[in-house]
Amino acid sequence: MGHVVTVWNRTAEKCDLFIQEGARLGRTPAEVVSMCDITFSCVSDPKAARDLVMGPSGVLQGIRPGKCYVEMSTVDPETITELSQVITSRGGRFLEAPVAGSQQLSNEGMLVIVAAGDRTVYEDCSSCFMAMGKTSFFLGEAGNAARMMLILNMVQGSFMATIAEGLTLAQATGQSQQTFLDILCQGQMASTFVDQKCQNILQGNFKPDYYLKHIQKDLRLAISMGDNANHPTPMAAAANEVYKRAKALDQSDNDISAVYRAYIH
Amino acid sequence: MGHVVTVWNRTAEKCDLFIQEGARLGRTPAEVVSMCDITFSCVSDPKAARDLVMGPSGVLQGIRPGKCYVEMSTVDPETITELSQVITSRGGRFLEAPVAGSQQLSNEGMLVIVAAGDRTVYEDCSSCFMAMGKTSFFLGEAGNAARMMLILNMVQGSFMATIAEGLTLAQATGQSQQTFLDILCQGQMASTFVDQKCQNILQGNFKPDYYLKHIQKDLRLAISMGDNANHPTPMAAAANEVYKRAKALDQSDNDISAVYRAYIH
Amino acid sequence: MGHVVTVWNRTAEKCDLFIQEGARLGRTPAEVVSMCDITFSCVSDPKAARDLVMGPSGVLQGIRPGKCYVEMSTVDPETITELSQVITSRGGRFLEAPVAGSQQLSNEGMLVIVAAGDRTVYEDCSSCFMAMGKTSFFLGEAGNAARMMLILNMVQGSFMATIAEGLTLAQATGQSQQTFLDILCQGQMASTFVDQKCQNILQGNFKPDYYLKHIQKDLRLAISMGDNANHPTPMAAAANEVYKRAKALDQSDNDISAVYRAYIH
Amino acid sequence: MGHVVTVWNRTAEKCDLFIQEGARLGRTPAEVVSMCDITFSCVSDPKAARDLVMGPSGVLQGIRPGKCYVEMSTVDPETITELSQVITSRGGRFLEAPVAGSQQLSNEGMLVIVAAGDRTVYEDCSSCFMAMGKTSFFLGEAGNAARMMLILNMVQGSFMATIAEGLTLAQATGQSQQTFLDILCQGQMASTFVDQKCQNILQGNFKPDYYLKHIQKDLRLAISMGDNANHPTPMAAAANEVYKRAKALDQSDNDISAVYRAYIH
Repeated sequence: MGHVVTVWNRTAEKCDLFIQEGARLGRTPAEVVSMCDITFSCVSDPKAARDLVMGPSGVLQGIRPGKCYVEMSTVDPETITELSQVITSRGGRFLEAPVAGSQQLSNEGMLVIVAAGDRTVYEDCSSCFMAMGKTSFFLGEAGNAARMMLILNMVQGSFMATIAEGLTLAQATGQSQQTFLDILCQGQMASTFVDQKCQNILQGNFKPDYYLKHIQKDLRLAISMGDNANHPTPMAAAANEVYKRAKALDQSDNDISAVYRAYIH
Repeated sequence: MGHVVTVWNRTAEKCDLFIQEGARLGRTPAEVVSMCDITFSCVSDPKAARDLVMGPSGVLQGIRPGKCYVEMSTVDPETITELSQVITSRGGRFLEAPVAGSQQLSNEGMLVIVAAGDRTVYEDCSSCFMAMGKTSFFLGEAGNAARMMLILNMVQGSFMATIAEGLTLAQATGQSQQTFLDILCQGQMASTFVDQKCQNILQGNFKPDYYLKHIQKDLRLAISMGDNANHPTPMAAAANEVYKRAKALDQSDNDISAVYRAYIH
Repeated sequence: MGHVVTVWNRTAEKCDLFIQEGARLGRTPAEVVSMCDITFSCVSDPKAARDLVMGPSGVLQGIRPGKCYVEMSTVDPETITELSQVITSRGGRFLEAPVAGSQQLSNEGMLVIVAAGDRTVYEDCSSCFMAMGKTSFFLGEAGNAARMMLILNMVQGSFMATIAEGLTLAQATGQSQQTFLDILCQGQMASTFVDQKCQNILQGNFKPDYYLKHIQKDLRLAISMGDNANHPTPMAAAANEVYKRAKALDQSDNDISAVYRAYIH
Repeated sequence: MGHVVTVWNRTAEKCDLFIQEGARLGRTPAEVVSMCDITFSCVSDPKAARDLVMGPSGVLQGIRPGKCYVEMSTVDPETITELSQVITSRGGRFLEAPVAGSQQLSNEGMLVIVAAGDRTVYEDCSSCFMAMGKTSFFLGEAGNAARMMLILNMVQGSFMATIAEGLTLAQATGQSQQTFLDILCQGQMASTFVDQKCQNILQGNFKPDYYLKHIQKDLRLAISMGDNANHPTPMAAAANEVYKRAKALDQSDNDISAVYRAYIH
């Protein structure tokens, strides 16, 4: 898309491919921020997100008035609020922009970007977001994107457990799992998600597209949001217990579809 | 499709439209069976299905060796087994063929037909099924189609409760329900089901496409199948309790999407 | 207590001990009823209860106007209603009188008797009930005792699963299960039930005092009563799923305390 | 018991009664610690516990080598670990000693004390604990008492929800709640807890002995302990959702028995 890109990663060789394609290398997060108008980050959890910003040679060291920082990691609303405060207290402009979608969609530029925070940053990012995803949403104040993502992931976690429950009940009552899937995919509930997860299960392929331990964490955080809002979430609570069983069966680092195994052991 | 069609309904005027289109009128179920090679029935519950066959001037009175009877009602496997036995004990040939889909899909000839029982009947029905639905499946011995339908409806019931949980948690945490739906429909979980049910909820339209009381009954029967197979179904059990709450709130005769109301009262 | 006692059992030798103590032997259920004013029965499930009454040489054959029949088996309200109708239609007088308590309490004459049906029979039985149990209740029309027993057993089933959950969470977080029990037994939740079940679990003793498969059946029936009354029972629903898991782990014929194993496998 | 007692409370007048009985007044937490060998604290939540220790004129200001600090508040294991560290880093000796029991038991000196941390402090406290409770337990390293209390409260929360479910199902199926309670209290499940909570419910008395919002928080923390240990807690998860519903019905500041209202609204 014609952007000038500067990259950094804890593991240096992960940058090589980007360098070969013409990207510049920043030696530290602080240096990346110094070199760029807009910096995007995406790491695995709240602790990593905080360390990247507040650690030594971290993002904060490079923030100057007007610099934009876009947090694309899926974390809890409280972490987002904290990051937003430290960035803006240095004059920086903050946007959270977690993504919905899988590894595969990411490769295809088909992610859905859910953003919140500083609207002018959102607007300034539009050509970047066009390069990464197929569409984006702006949800208002920082924290809202994290909230929305948790609810979406809660729905995904409950759907996945439900599908596993259906597949295993089919088997337990003497029905063909493949036929179950075929019928499901002919009906109104058909979706890419249902189709891919079922096919992976039937092939015994639990290679992680989204980690089971992460969806369990998301369910816990969503239930906890419900707690704070005095809003019951019985489906998520039931799903959470099934995922905990799957974790006890050593499925944490498999795909969320490995919740299937909680039903057959 | 060129079939000669004979119709009967408890409520005579419901036949009028068909008569105008060229259908013949049978005066009783028995007469319909006498006049036709293949008789299809579709009623609301196990009791109605049994009465139609075994009641006065019922189907059994018209059954002769070779006559085909196709039960398209969604009932429990035990009822199917019983109907199959009485029909075949008179020399009749039996097929169960419940359908997956809504009122609307039915009008458009886009139903999915799930059949089981006598395979030769299934084959003899192929041109009829082509007229009614977009595709059909044959699952082996009678009872299997009922089992498969219960599992599909169990999944549908849990999906619906999950969607309602997501929509209400969005509201309870200050997020826009319309935006939640928009993002959901951009992602891999997008489906006709998710889209239509959410839109109906957002419009406050709970006109029944499938009765809430029926999905609750299906959940109960599916949980009971799990009971017999010693197979836990925690998602269905959680969903069942939410639908029971919806019934207590007088939503029985609304659409399954009215489970939404169990979350806001 | 000075009663003249006549006994019958499908397995004849089970009567020997009673004969030695002075009881008379009836050759069939019908003969017992002919010989006695009041007949008590106690069998394992609804089918056995029905067969005993309506089978060949069954209770019904011996019923004459004024004869009393007391059903002490724990069955569902519908079975009670049916038995009550057939007995009274022959001029008999009917009482249901299921008992709360264990094998051990039975041996000690410490059962609690929960009766419903014909109040005059209840009064005529008072000296008999004094011989069997420590106290009795009369709940009105037939079916009410069955309903009350199902609710009591539902509570017992949920309590038992909760205790197992506490014991296993103690272990999973590095706490002593014995200490957990000791503290529990010092507090307001202390009960014979908690004490005995925990001790049995700690000793690995799952010899049936009440069969796990029976409490699971009771939970299912109680949930179903809630279904009919549109009354959610989420605790019972959760407990039911845990017992189903225990059944899948082959614990059906162990004591209800074997639900513990569903938490550690 | 002959102890010299020094008191402090945020709300000064709460000390008056103790002063009249001969207690000395400390002007700040720090002063109390300076004046005493052993200091006991009991506040409502983790934040209050931390503030008391680490706030201005807090406990830490008075800690000298050898001083004992006994935290009797029920808080999470992480808070205990933190308090233990700051106290011992100043040479202080730390014990956690939360109590099981109600307001009433406290007045009667019948509490059960669950202690963990520095064993020598536990021994030095023995005459004090004898004055406060009927018995005490020592569970090893700091944090264990918090863990044990959370599990006990989890059991209590699930018991309470189960009792409410039984009472309301009795009513929904036409049974007398008083009779239900009478039978329950004749059987092996009889306990002070069951008896008192049921009686309070039947009298419509929901005056807090233990706050509903606190048991819900305890359930959440216990479920979260299970999360960390990969241990499913489906009963607690179901109970938690019922309490969340009760909170949404404005029962937070009533007794835990007000969970009853979640079943009737």
